[in-house]
Amino acid sequence: MHIGKIIGTVVATRKNEELLGSKLMITQPLDLEMKPKGEPIIAVDTVGAGVGETVLFTTGTAGRIAARKMDAPIDAAIVGIIDEIDVLLREAPDKEVSA
Amino acid sequence: MHIGKIIGTVVATRKNEELLGSKLMITQPLDLEMKPKGEPIIAVDTVGAGVGETVLFTTGTAGRIAARKMDAPIDAAIVGIIDEIDVLLREAPDKEVSA
Amino acid sequence: MHIGKIIGTVVATRKNEELLGSKLMITQPLDLEMKPKGEPIIAVDTVGAGVGETVLFTTGTAGRIAARKMDAPIDAAIVGIIDEIDVLLREAPDKEVSA
Amino acid sequence: MHIGKIIGTVVATRKNEELLGSKLMITQPLDLEMKPKGEPIIAVDTVGAGVGETVLFTTGTAGRIAARKMDAPIDAAIVGIIDEIDVLLREAPDKEVSA
Amino acid sequence: MHIGKIIGTVVATRKNEELLGSKLMITQPLDLEMKPKGEPIIAVDTVGAGVGETVLFTTGTAGRIAARKMDAPIDAAIVGIIDEIDVLLREAPDKEVSA
Repeated sequence: MHIGKIIGTVVATRKNEELLGSKLMITQPLDLEMKPKGEPIIAVDTVGAGVGETVLFTTGTAGRIAARKMDAPIDAAIVGIIDEIDVLLREAPDKEVSA
Repeated sequence: MHIGKIIGTVVATRKNEELLGSKLMITQPLDLEMKPKGEPIIAVDTVGAGVGETVLFTTGTAGRIAARKMDAPIDAAIVGIIDEIDVLLREAPDKEVSA
Repeated sequence: MHIGKIIGTVVATRKNEELLGSKLMITQPLDLEMKPKGEPIIAVDTVGAGVGETVLFTTGTAGRIAARKMDAPIDAAIVGIIDEIDVLLREAPDKEVSA
Repeated sequence: MHIGKIIGTVVATRKNEELLGSKLMITQPLDLEMKPKGEPIIAVDTVGAGVGETVLFTTGTAGRIAARKMDAPIDAAIVGIIDEIDVLLREAPDKEVSA
Repeated sequence: MHIGKIIGTVVATRKNEELLGSKLMITQPLDLEMKPKGEPIIAVDTVGAGVGETVLFTTGTAGRIAARKMDAPIDAAIVGIIDEIDVLLREAPDKEVSA
């Protein structure tokens, strides 16, 4: 899964009928400093998230599973609203395995 | 899903028979400013889209689902024609989660 | 799907038995100007394509579907021989959707 | 699979119910010199790994398989704790195949 | 599929039980000049390959298929040992399709 922020919505009147009723959220991927990284994707909301919220999103088949719509052409979905991110270890990792 | 624009078509007479009847659209991915990003892909049309239209497209298994052709070697499909894109939040995100 | 050109072949005597009989083609992805982009991949031929031909190829599960070998470890396949590419619209897209 | 290091955790109270009980670990991909490469991803722990450990992680459907939760929207999972990495051959490869 | 060279092994005592007995090979992707490209991945051996050999590897679901372990969290596998690579056509492709 990845961390993202919902920054907008997409409206498509003519669309695949399995997408009817799905909220299409423009989701900006974030890094651990909460800075944007890469291009936004369009994800289906499955947890009642709104614009401005920091979310957990998933891609591929996992997106359809999240939406409980295995017959819908969904390849990305929002699966959680993030309360807290704990980064406990950011220093260069030690070679604790023999390499 | 991703935002794209249909910029052309591909004709292939000798092809996998499961692709017969599928319209192969050259689709240019776009960013939120509607500027091209990355290389075009070839997507199957499933919503009656035409050249010049701004569309929503999906990749992977979701493409076959969109086309309702699970036996066809499709890995990308157009699933909606976009009417409106609302980007409500583009500023650098606040650290509203404890990080 | 993507546009590519077959530029060679790979011979592997010791291989997964489900790959026996599959022709392994070195396929160079092309952009719309027919220039190479990115690194070649090894795709299974499913349409009788030969070295030098411009083809349509697909990746992931769609590759196994194309080869009609769902038990074979195939992740890319050639699914069509391209006759014609019509790029009708290459200018910077207009903002015909409200953004 | 890929090599990574667990560097933190993510807490999401409102989430897809199939994710309840899953530990969400921030996993930094590493190269063979144990240096960070690319952006961290959020993976579900399936082997009892803790922060600071060097792990083997997998992505896509393989993540759901690892978690034995095929109905959960999981697209990455930790599947092993690495004891030892043996890099036996790092020089430029010889052309021992006819090319 | 992709061309790679086995450059080492990974040992993980605590791991997903479906991975027990699988040999985890560090595989360096190669380009057609047999030069390393990109970062190594960890692939499961399915053909009896050893360190130093030039191999064909596959990713995603195709990896599990190769290993005949659909319940194992495998996302990459070695599926052949390469004997010969014939690159017959490396010049800039001609525009033999109308573009």
